[in-house]
Amino acid sequence: MELLDLHSTVDMLRASDRILVLGHVQPDGDCLGSMTALALGMKLLGKSVALWADEPVPAKYRFLAAEFATPRPDLLKEFDLVVAVDTSTFARIGADVSLAAAGLPVLAIDHHPVVETRFTYLYADDTQAAVGCMMYDILRELDVPLSPAIADALYAAILTDTGCFTYKNTARRSFEIVLALIDAGVDTADIASTVYNSAPAAQLRLLRAALDTLEFVRAGRGAYMYLSREMQEQEGAAEADTENFVNHVRAVREVEVACMVTAMPDNGRLRISLRSKRPEVDVSALAAQFGGGGHACASGARVDEPLKTFLPKFRARLETFIDELPPL
Amino acid sequence: MELLDLHSTVDMLRASDRILVLGHVQPDGDCLGSMTALALGMKLLGKSVALWADEPVPAKYRFLAAEFATPRPDLLKEFDLVVAVDTSTFARIGADVSLAAAGLPVLAIDHHPVVETRFTYLYADDTQAAVGCMMYDILRELDVPLSPAIADALYAAILTDTGCFTYKNTARRSFEIVLALIDAGVDTADIASTVYNSAPAAQLRLLRAALDTLEFVRAGRGAYMYLSREMQEQEGAAEADTENFVNHVRAVREVEVACMVTAMPDNGRLRISLRSKRPEVDVSALAAQFGGGGHACASGARVDEPLKTFLPKFRARLETFIDELPPL
Repeated sequence: MELLDLHSTVDMLRASDRILVLGHVQPDGDCLGSMTALALGMKLLGKSVALWADEPVPAKYRFLAAEFATPRPDLLKEFDLVVAVDTSTFARIGADVSLAAAGLPVLAIDHHPVVETRFTYLYADDTQAAVGCMMYDILRELDVPLSPAIADALYAAILTDTGCFTYKNTARRSFEIVLALIDAGVDTADIASTVYNSAPAAQLRLLRAALDTLEFVRAGRGAYMYLSREMQEQEGAAEADTENFVNHVRAVREVEVACMVTAMPDNGRLRISLRSKRPEVDVSALAAQFGGGGHACASGARVDEPLKTFLPKFRARLETFIDELPPL
Repeated sequence: MELLDLHSTVDMLRASDRILVLGHVQPDGDCLGSMTALALGMKLLGKSVALWADEPVPAKYRFLAAEFATPRPDLLKEFDLVVAVDTSTFARIGADVSLAAAGLPVLAIDHHPVVETRFTYLYADDTQAAVGCMMYDILRELDVPLSPAIADALYAAILTDTGCFTYKNTARRSFEIVLALIDAGVDTADIASTVYNSAPAAQLRLLRAALDTLEFVRAGRGAYMYLSREMQEQEGAAEADTENFVNHVRAVREVEVACMVTAMPDNGRLRISLRSKRPEVDVSALAAQFGGGGHACASGARVDEPLKTFLPKFRARLETFIDELPPL
């Protein structure tokens, strides 16, 4: 794997004519917004671009001006570069195609800490609030004009990955880029309302159901809630976005480690979401115990195990993790 | 009442030596942050300043570097100017003292639409996202250095009144000011975490209880939930901040008018919180039916009536309000 910087990344994109853009599984706003901005930018440069995703785009992100197509392995040979956005984990690429078999170079553009070396090229910068910020730099460097659709996509990326500018990753630079995006035509309130005020009513019923399961451990320093498949089936939870429920747990004053365990409606696999309030409480270490990873203050994992047997194990691990935290 | 602009406001502050700063009842982040910034700024100019508030400062705002004292009517004669922050309604001033009897001039600084004329002076600008933005301009115009404590207070004001930069009021100017505040030393994530991650655990139990009462009207175009005093007593809700619960209702896709009715724990009076997603759905008109007011997308009222008899009336008014909305 070759590590790239901004300039060599830009050179590689400039030298490629047929680009396949991929994201990660369960794509979020940063992933989809950054994919969209890159694809639209490459098209403005006259390149041929496709975006592939295994999963349908969540309703709240369907305003993004890009078409996400179902992967077509038979078409892989048409591309000369694959760009994987917002993941530095090969296994989390959100299109289940054998890139290795196709012999295509894969360039990952990501802001997570680097955890593996299976990409052909990697441009990673974990000081960036969002891949959207990196895409902004890339497109500027490529002299791509910031069309309103590109600006909207970048704003959605930055807004969501900074938690509306509240997370630790939010930098001065994030706000500087926002000013440039506003000048390019972004209606910030409109995008926020589209992303955050598009929930199905079932999402509130699910939140209530999740809150019913809230448990505190170790004098409230840790807390978790869960959603079973049954709860989701009962509430008619299609399209409900439960990804941010864990933030309610984090909102409690005493809580240092906030957790949410969600049985995915499609396959029953468990999604573990972990949040902390300060980098010294590095929840990526807890996530790693379940084969996951992420940032110090926001990590996750996927586990293939029934909820019922997993929860007591998880609780024990959480308690031990808190017991071993360094003193404040 | 004399209307002032930025320059005449600044002249008046410069000419005053002993300033009493007041806010509004149930003070929010914009009110308390703007009061703090003004008071600290005036002190840096060598003036004598006091901040009075009838109510204790909510825990999440206690980081603000100002002392909010209990009103002392006997000391009123010591001041030569009263500044009322974040309200253009005389009756909502958050210190129950007879300013008229004291014969003191009262200058209101506010970003709400003007609804009355009982102040001596009014500097109002309803295009501003927060009074915090107006205070920023005032302090800059006065050549007050942006101390870290002033910058923190202004950031708290802007962050909370823009709903983390998601509301319609959020302007390019809001982000420009944020850059200046960051340069003055604000740790944006730290303040966001203090404000939003300091909830008592009871707040989540209350949210669950409120979600249990959620009702939709008119095919989901309107929705409301409520909190009774009994629910709050049962959950041990002291210190819980329920002000933002209404945003959960607004988050639902179909909802155009989101409402929350809260019986205040101390006196049982009802707080009506109303939100819409676009200025064309002007909920201040609905609030006015209950003697309240505010902005087009965020308004409120206080009602002195038992919850049980009020709710059916409220529902009927809400239904009529929705029926009479202009088509989209």
